[in-house]
Amino acid sequence: RGSAGRGGWEMAAWARAVRGLLLDVSGVLYDSGGDGGVPIAGSVEAVRRVKASGLKLRFCTNETQATREKFVKKLQGMGFDISVDEVTAPAPAACRILKERSLRPHLLVHNDLIPEFAEIDKANPNCVVIGDAAENFTYANLNEAFRVLIGMEKPVLISLGRGRYYKETDGLKLDVGAYMKALEYACDVQAEVVGKPAKMFFESALAEMGVPPQQAIMIGDDIVNDVGGAQRCGMRALQVRTGKYRPCDENHPHVKPDAYVNNLAEAVDVILQQL
Amino acid sequence: RGSAGRGGWEMAAWARAVRGLLLDVSGVLYDSGGDGGVPIAGSVEAVRRVKASGLKLRFCTNETQATREKFVKKLQGMGFDISVDEVTAPAPAACRILKERSLRPHLLVHNDLIPEFAEIDKANPNCVVIGDAAENFTYANLNEAFRVLIGMEKPVLISLGRGRYYKETDGLKLDVGAYMKALEYACDVQAEVVGKPAKMFFESALAEMGVPPQQAIMIGDDIVNDVGGAQRCGMRALQVRTGKYRPCDENHPHVKPDAYVNNLAEAVDVILQQL
Repeated sequence: RGSAGRGGWEMAAWARAVRGLLLDVSGVLYDSGGDGGVPIAGSVEAVRRVKASGLKLRFCTNETQATREKFVKKLQGMGFDISVDEVTAPAPAACRILKERSLRPHLLVHNDLIPEFAEIDKANPNCVVIGDAAENFTYANLNEAFRVLIGMEKPVLISLGRGRYYKETDGLKLDVGAYMKALEYACDVQAEVVGKPAKMFFESALAEMGVPPQQAIMIGDDIVNDVGGAQRCGMRALQVRTGKYRPCDENHPHVKPDAYVNNLAEAVDVILQQL
Repeated sequence: RGSAGRGGWEMAAWARAVRGLLLDVSGVLYDSGGDGGVPIAGSVEAVRRVKASGLKLRFCTNETQATREKFVKKLQGMGFDISVDEVTAPAPAACRILKERSLRPHLLVHNDLIPEFAEIDKANPNCVVIGDAAENFTYANLNEAFRVLIGMEKPVLISLGRGRYYKETDGLKLDVGAYMKALEYACDVQAEVVGKPAKMFFESALAEMGVPPQQAIMIGDDIVNDVGGAQRCGMRALQVRTGKYRPCDENHPHVKPDAYVNNLAEAVDVILQQL
């Protein structure tokens, strides 16, 4: 495993074999805030340098509070070179599953995410899809989603992520995973999780890049969902010390990144040096 | 084990030794509905006969949507001979725990339950108490309870029951257990459950009656929380075929009542015959 820190990173065979990068977005490219967010120093330039290098690149996010279109516009507004077809996100992945299995969802999601499901038949639902619905997590909406689920012979619950909580400028907020657990318990079912750390989610990002896991590196701030999830797919994974990174992550009982980097700019420096 | 049905119940040594009865309330004494509820046929008279028999009697409920005063008034209005000091309920049990351990709660409960905590110091909270808050289970209130918990060095979550859901006239509702699970997951803690099926809860009801578990019978409609909980305390337990009873309860994988009865009136018939 490479050691951490600028300049102290040891050359490793896996780093020289790299052909594609997967980047988490929030906490790696930018820090989210009340009015959208602020780019993390060096990240705008780092994305440009990756694109100029010829490495394949994919943005891999669990964002479910907005359509990819809206999300990408926000990032472009901060100066990032990013387009919708470079983004792997849970909602389109869920749509593929819904179509494959002829599932008609009852949606408990953020209003801004609903357009992602525009082409999906939602009449007479036979499953529930839950995302980070934020203000839509009302008592009435939770009871309604519960009633749809408990009314099924075999309840199907699809969750766009399993995050516990996240930070916004006005404080910590419960994430979709907490509400998923409430419905799981009430209906005695296990949710199918789409999004990081699900293996299928990373695999579809790799397929979209056309790069095998052994030649890809994931860069993220979340020790479990980014680093642990990517490693279980056979990828290498770096943890940045930005975003939701906390020093205690470095003592995580189960997950060890292949290396730590201070931020995305440093990760890109080191990776490009070995090409 | 006694066999089910009127007249078909076999005499058992444990039934002849009975000195006290614990009665669940909702689904045994009455069926809840929009405007309060309707007594189950024969139950008003059954309670009177138990009291006339000299058996000790205790009402053992997980009700947390009202103070005991309000709850008892509703039952008296239906004709039941019941007083506040005959009721064992989660909120007073929680108050004893709070006092014993010098805990100052942040309350996420129904407005009508708040007076039960009138004498408890709630400044600068060092634990969260969650009950069936119903309309108070808003996105904002859940986030607030979460923030209080996650801000503690060692989060303490006390839950007034662990029910999954219940039925009201306008449909099924998520019960406190579902929201407890959401907070447990978000904060990586395990809640301490007050109320049925917690052993301490049954034990305090027995202590209040002054009857050992071997001489007490629990009568309830909930196979897990009433029957299973009481049996784990060394009591015998009957399941009534009223309230939330469902035929599939009779094939429960873990819990077998000591006998089934069609309703409270039948249970009291058989028990009083053996005295």
